[in-house]
This record gives sequence, C-alpha cells and structure tokens, in this order.
Amino acid sequence: MRKKVLIVFAQPEPTSLVRQLVDTGVAALEAEGHSVMLSDLYGMGWKAVYDAADFPERANSERLSFIAESGHAFDSGTQPADIAAEQAKVLAADAIILAFPLWWFGMPAILKGWIDRVWAYGFAYGYKGQGNRHRYGGGGLAGRRALLAVTTGGPAEDYSPRGINGPLEQLLFPVTHGMLFYPGMAVLPTHALYGVNRITAEGMEAAKEAWRARLKHLFDEKPIAFRAQNGGDYPDHHTLADDIAPGESGILLHIAK
Amino acid sequence: MRKKVLIVFAQPEPTSLVRQLVDTGVAALEAEGHSVMLSDLYGMGWKAVYDAADFPERANSERLSFIAESGHAFDSGTQPADIAAEQAKVLAADAIILAFPLWWFGMPAILKGWIDRVWAYGFAYGYKGQGNRHRYGGGGLAGRRALLAVTTGGPAEDYSPRGINGPLEQLLFPVTHGMLFYPGMAVLPTHALYGVNRITAEGMEAAKEAWRARLKHLFDEKPIAFRAQNGGDYPDHHTLADDIAPGESGILLHIAK
Repeated sequence: MRKKVLIVFAQPEPTSLVRQLVDTGVAALEAEGHSVMLSDLYGMGWKAVYDAADFPERANSERLSFIAESGHAFDSGTQPADIAAEQAKVLAADAIILAFPLWWFGMPAILKGWIDRVWAYGFAYGYKGQGNRHRYGGGGLAGRRALLAVTTGGPAEDYSPRGINGPLEQLLFPVTHGMLFYPGMAVLPTHALYGVNRITAEGMEAAKEAWRARLKHLFDEKPIAFRAQNGGDYPDHHTLADDIAPGESGILLHIAK
Repeated sequence: MRKKVLIVFAQPEPTSLVRQLVDTGVAALEAEGHSVMLSDLYGMGWKAVYDAADFPERANSERLSFIAESGHAFDSGTQPADIAAEQAKVLAADAIILAFPLWWFGMPAILKGWIDRVWAYGFAYGYKGQGNRHRYGGGGLAGRRALLAVTTGGPAEDYSPRGINGPLEQLLFPVTHGMLFYPGMAVLPTHALYGVNRITAEGMEAAKEAWRARLKHLFDEKPIAFRAQNGGDYPDHHTLADDIAPGESGILLHIAK
C-alpha cells in the first residue's frame, strides 16, 4: 500500500547526521512506493515564536488568550498561510516523522515553535470544540503514525536505563505522549542515533542501514502502548483507574504492560 | 543578605497570569531587599532560532557544527551581543527564575531558544573546555539557584501522581535536571499554578500570596536532591553505581532519597 509520509526536520547543516538520516529516509520510503513531503524548518525560515502576529483577526483585541485566539483563527480560516499549509500536510500524511538533534534534552526551538503554532485549538487539541473530550489516542490526528528520529552528541550509555541523563524515551515522554499521542497519533518507539560527535564513516553507514530497516516497518511496527483516554483506563478522563497498578505513580503508568 | 535575581519570562500578554506572577515576584523580592533583573523575551523580541547567524566569525566556514562554533564564539568573544548580555545577567544572578505557560508539556519556543542560544559551550556545558567533566551539579553556573514558575491551562489532577498527563515535575525533568542542574545550579521544586483557564479573582489572589510566601524562602529552601556527577554516585561519570537502587531504572533514580 502506497502511503504519504511527512518528514519535519530541524537542522540547517546539509552534511549533518540528521540531514543524512532525512535523505536516507526519503530514498528508502520512495523505494517502497511511498510519497514523501518535507518540511525543512530552517530552509523554510520557519517562524518559531507564537505571538500576536499569528492572529491577524482577533476575537478579542483587548487581551491575548492564545487558546481562544487559536480556536478563533482555526475556525474562521484566518490563520497565517504558513500554519495552514503545515496543517494541510499533516492531514494529508499517513505518518509523520520529526527528525532533529537533541538540544538540551528536547527539540530545537524552531521545531518546538512548529508544534506551538501548527497544533492549533480545534486541530490538535479542543477537537470539535469539545475541550478535552477527544485527547490521548483520539482527536484530530487519529489514524496517523508518528516517529521521532533523534541524534545525540552524548554516548548511548548516558541515555541508558541507569544513565546519568535519564533514559531517552522517558526524556521524550512530553513529546511522544504529550505532543503526538495527545492529538491521536499512534507513536512508534523513538529511533535514536547516539554519540554523533564521534561517529565514524563506518558507523554512519551502519546507522543508515538500521534506519532503512526500521522504515520498512513504519506502517506495521507496533506502537508504544500508551493508554487511550477514552479506552476505559481513565474513568473520569483525568486519572488512572484505581485498579490499574494500584499505589504506583509516574509517567510510565500511561504505557500498558 | 541582599541577592540578585534574574527572572526570564515568556508570555507577551501583560494581563496574563504569568505576567501577574512576574510582577508579584518582583515586588516581593524587592521588598526583601533583593535586586531583580528581568528578561522579557517577547518584549525584547528575542531571537529564538539558533542558526548560522549566531556565529559571525566561524571556526569552520565549510561545515556548521553548533558545538564547535558555540565554543569558538564563546572563547573568542565573537558571540552576538544579545547572547553575551544574557550570559552576563545569568553570571550576575544568585538565583534564576524561569516563568512561562506550559505549552505542549514544555517551554514556549522563545524560551527554549533562550536556552539553546545562551547555554553556550564553555558557559553551560563543556566548562573549561573539558567536555563532560563538570556537568550535573558542577560547572559554569554552580553556586546559583534556579526555579521554574509554570502555569497550566489544565487542572491539577491531570498533573497529579496518577494524572493522565503525567506528574508535572517528571514532565519537567528534562528542564530541571537537564537544563538547570546540568550547568551546576541548585534547582528548587517547580512552582506551579494549575487550571489558569478557569481561575477566579479570589483564586488568583491566593496564588499570588502563595507565590510571595514561596519566594521568601528562595535562598533557604531545600533544592531537589539531584545527584551530582562528581559526588561519587556515578563512578564512571555515565551510569549510576550498581549498589544504588540495584535493578531499578529511570529518571527518578537521579534524585537521592
């Protein structure tokens, strides 16, 4: 089955390892018969800062509420063209890959600003104007897959289960669970390339091969088993049912065993 | 003892709850005899995107390595003036408060871009040009305190120990541990104001009073007990010693019991 894949990436250097993964990914996906859309945030000069200029026709000109103005702009079709264009790409995609170097244990600002601006009220939250009714596993982006492709300067051991930085997948929980699963996407385990500051040419070739192999299963790999809000595990839509992992707490509870 | 406090904030609306917390904080700190510096990122038109323009005199004009160019610009005094000015404020401060609305479970892009650009190699990492030698509890910003002041639109229960978003302090681990403790600061537990979309005038007054009370102890409150890299808990400087919480894993291991 031919699918559409959107790759959003945040690294301006054409020879960087992120860009090599993007180029490798495009070739691998096209070889499978898929079509690929690209959002090269640095190349596009993406506006990172979400501000009043994003609401040319205000619902309330007195006081800037981002949530209220976001919903108003989305509903009234008055969003800036760059935001609307990215939303159209996301809706056209069967899978979305975010490729970026890990900067200070998160996304570069330009990519965070893509989320801040594109993930509008009515689009990625407040779906159908119904507040939190459809979040986490349901919502505007349901039916799509999402995958992070991340490079780190530091070595894998620093991100290992007992590594000093914390495990990479836990550091990225606010992204995978909070930004991607929240609007309804099925999120695959993060694809990481560690220690890129010291990688050899041989290591890079092996990394590309691993990435190609990974992408072959983009549409049949098992996603992270995040619990859906409306699947029964959150009877009040806010907290986990008492009979699931009783007495335990923390982010990992939101992944089914 | 009079101290200097830097408040960095990321919310353009003057009547927003973040701005009310900032204003309340300035008054409370000055009433204690402290002096306050402000970085109003929206008001300053802060450049959020870290890019080649931040390295006017390149060490390598062929290929852009952010780490290498960051270190070169810092060492050679060729950083842009806005970056150098923020670094000077940070060095002058005894405590740093980052105040922001939680957007998609993290900082607004403009604040992430403040970290990306100001936290230079040689300043917040790679201290003394020695790679990872001084990170986590030691380093360029040691001797300072740091505190996050965060507002959330969603209710407190969503961020509670078993709440659907995950506990706020765990979602912010990449910030508190990764961005603030890494360069050496002692980090206080996050100050959160939940459910700001529905707060009453009475609730806001109570929130301001709680914030004033909290700030009275900015310099004597006990920080989060993050484990220092060079304190003995990480014999190889990468992974936690085998005899600490044997068999366990995850971000919470890096907080001493």
